[in-house]
Amino acid sequence: MKKILSIDVGGTKISHCVFNEKGEALSEIKKHSSPKKIEEMIDLFKKIISEHEKSVDYIAFATAGAINLQNTKVESSTPNLPNGYNKIDFSLLSEKPVFVENDANAAAWAEYKLGAAVGHQNTVIVTLGTGIGGGIIINGELLRGKSGRAAEIGSIKLFPDKRRKCTCNNYDCWESYASGTGLKTTAKELAESLIEFKESIYKNKQPNEITTHDIVSGIKENDSYSIKVFDCWHNHLLSGLISLTNIFDPESIVISGGMGEFIRFSELESEINGSIVVSPIKLLLAKMKNDAGMVGAALLAYEKNK
Amino acid sequence: MKKILSIDVGGTKISHCVFNEKGEALSEIKKHSSPKKIEEMIDLFKKIISEHEKSVDYIAFATAGAINLQNTKVESSTPNLPNGYNKIDFSLLSEKPVFVENDANAAAWAEYKLGAAVGHQNTVIVTLGTGIGGGIIINGELLRGKSGRAAEIGSIKLFPDKRRKCTCNNYDCWESYASGTGLKTTAKELAESLIEFKESIYKNKQPNEITTHDIVSGIKENDSYSIKVFDCWHNHLLSGLISLTNIFDPESIVISGGMGEFIRFSELESEINGSIVVSPIKLLLAKMKNDAGMVGAALLAYEKNK
Repeated sequence: MKKILSIDVGGTKISHCVFNEKGEALSEIKKHSSPKKIEEMIDLFKKIISEHEKSVDYIAFATAGAINLQNTKVESSTPNLPNGYNKIDFSLLSEKPVFVENDANAAAWAEYKLGAAVGHQNTVIVTLGTGIGGGIIINGELLRGKSGRAAEIGSIKLFPDKRRKCTCNNYDCWESYASGTGLKTTAKELAESLIEFKESIYKNKQPNEITTHDIVSGIKENDSYSIKVFDCWHNHLLSGLISLTNIFDPESIVISGGMGEFIRFSELESEINGSIVVSPIKLLLAKMKNDAGMVGAALLAYEKNK
Repeated sequence: MKKILSIDVGGTKISHCVFNEKGEALSEIKKHSSPKKIEEMIDLFKKIISEHEKSVDYIAFATAGAINLQNTKVESSTPNLPNGYNKIDFSLLSEKPVFVENDANAAAWAEYKLGAAVGHQNTVIVTLGTGIGGGIIINGELLRGKSGRAAEIGSIKLFPDKRRKCTCNNYDCWESYASGTGLKTTAKELAESLIEFKESIYKNKQPNEITTHDIVSGIKENDSYSIKVFDCWHNHLLSGLISLTNIFDPESIVISGGMGEFIRFSELESEINGSIVVSPIKLLLAKMKNDAGMVGAALLAYEKNK
């Protein structure tokens, strides 16, 4: 059975682990702090690779950024990684075949091969965290687009008329409403405009200090303000999921990321299926854990080279 | 060279023509009125097929409705076609191989193989008419989804908060704003709310009688109301195109349908490319004509059977 060294490159940590071709870990996951300088980062990659190169068949990277169609380079800017990161030709880092994939795509692939979407040839994986990312499987293949940048589902437009500025400098991206950050922004806006806030258990808090956990706790205490904030967020989330369902007619939509725990899945699934023009979907919670990107990149490296 | 009899089934007309495997017409296009009864429609199909069956290799149908993954049956309801239409097994209509595709998908395929999107492995064809339809090509293949219903891009949601009811009974579908019907609805709404309407050249018209052509003529006469209506429609159109671009990272978006003539392509292309997080697209006017569905179905029937 083939072995793959998989390296997950994040802005704060670089993790690595050896997997077999089924995606089963053959070692502990090891972690390093991400170097701030590009030379140090390349040295770290070389060090990790040299430790395993002889015993593995392929090297895989899961990383932020848009990946070229040859799966050898990062082509976009990557603000959380060192300057020059998109100059690295990963294929030159080892004599073994090297395969690079975007971390959200890689995690989606893991979910499709081993997680909640097993057997679903058409599925959309939505990562709901501080932002919204995603990966899309069509007929058992990753959607990559002309330049490897496809599946930027966080940038679906939720309103056409310029209301909320997004971190990407555009307006009204889905992620500026339906992510964790979006929920906080909605909490702040409604604290400033809703009459219910004056009676809320959070009435003495600064609007910009109200957190997702405050809102979720508030619902349990039947706090009208918290309920309105959550319903508004839930509706923003619903809207994008309806669009994705009508576009892809997928078997499932899988929610991963930290915000997944706050979703009422069966309620949201019913709402989606009551508002679409394609056939019904399943709305599922992701099964893969934090190592999804690493596992998915390992599986992809195997698939592409076998 | 192979020959394909292609039949386009619409609510008012049934057209047919024989093509070669390159999509070149080998006969005049013949048209019949669409029968109202299912038995008469099946008889008409059989009559057309029997006239050409011996001299062609394949039979193709382009039709409204969602098509099953085997391309033999219509699986959705088709309000403009006779009751029982989705019971027809098209594969039983001829001894030659029969291939059925949704008319918007077939037209998109023609645009990809012979029209504005030639060479674009990833492209989105948007049909802007009284409604919005479309077809999507990914890696040179039609996006069909789990049940053949994918690419319902007219049902992308433009607002999350229930403003305008769509003909599909849901709210705020893109097509209820960015189609021809959508432009008319916007003209009516703004006639009732915009102060500029009182000074407009259309001030004596009933708001619901203002047409797309009125608005386009009004712009030429520098009518402020007409300009605001058009800008609003243009912005609604832009919003959906941005979402599609961020999702698919396509090489191009091709606009077909009657509303295409009103679009300022280079302005709209710049606006899209200035508001996306993927790499730039080309915005193109469709080259194929009314027979696009018939041509595309013929080409698909050849591809699938060759």
